[in-house]
Amino acid sequence: AGLDARGFLFGPLLAQRLGVGFVQVRKRGKLPGPTLSVAYQLEYGKAEVEIQQDAVAPGQKVLVIDDLLATGGTLLAACELLEKLQARVLECVVVVELQELGGAERVRPVPVFSLVQY
Amino acid sequence: AGLDARGFLFGPLLAQRLGVGFVQVRKRGKLPGPTLSVAYQLEYGKAEVEIQQDAVAPGQKVLVIDDLLATGGTLLAACELLEKLQARVLECVVVVELQELGGAERVRPVPVFSLVQY
Repeated sequence: AGLDARGFLFGPLLAQRLGVGFVQVRKRGKLPGPTLSVAYQLEYGKAEVEIQQDAVAPGQKVLVIDDLLATGGTLLAACELLEKLQARVLECVVVVELQELGGAERVRPVPVFSLVQY
Repeated sequence: AGLDARGFLFGPLLAQRLGVGFVQVRKRGKLPGPTLSVAYQLEYGKAEVEIQQDAVAPGQKVLVIDDLLATGGTLLAACELLEKLQARVLECVVVVELQELGGAERVRPVPVFSLVQY
């Protein structure tokens, strides 16, 4: 599952390499059909992530991918969203992790894999 | 060059297959650093596409990729944006083309390649 919008840059590449499917986690109001959403707090105001209800099957194993892990708010909301669909979130995968902001702690117990740490 | 956001799903895959780079054309206000933008008319209201000024070099050959070609407004604006940077837009590539809406005529003389036509 890739996060809107820069997670879309990396998610399909990884999915293709792994030979698995890719689903979109989008900002609210972008997806057609029945959806499920989770609201979360931003530094200024609120946001919502949304997924199509049939995007994943119960028990299906999922990686969550984005470009950057900062405070982890969006990534945590995406994990909650996927768990609402009873998916098994195996790991969050990001290109860059800003370690001092504690995002990895926030998405625990889901492990975080990052290519680059600052 | 891929269009925000579903062009990001396909652009990097094609770029990797072709062994070339990928640059983002985003909705206004999403890109850091010096940018260039082009405004265009939507069915309701206006929108702007934006690119980083150093995304492409003058004379560089570019494919523009998105998921869907409808009226062609966004794709045309993206072509204009790339041409402002003096890129050579070789072709627009889309997954689905809604032929009755005349988008391909609108982006002329840039040719359009679509995988599926309706």
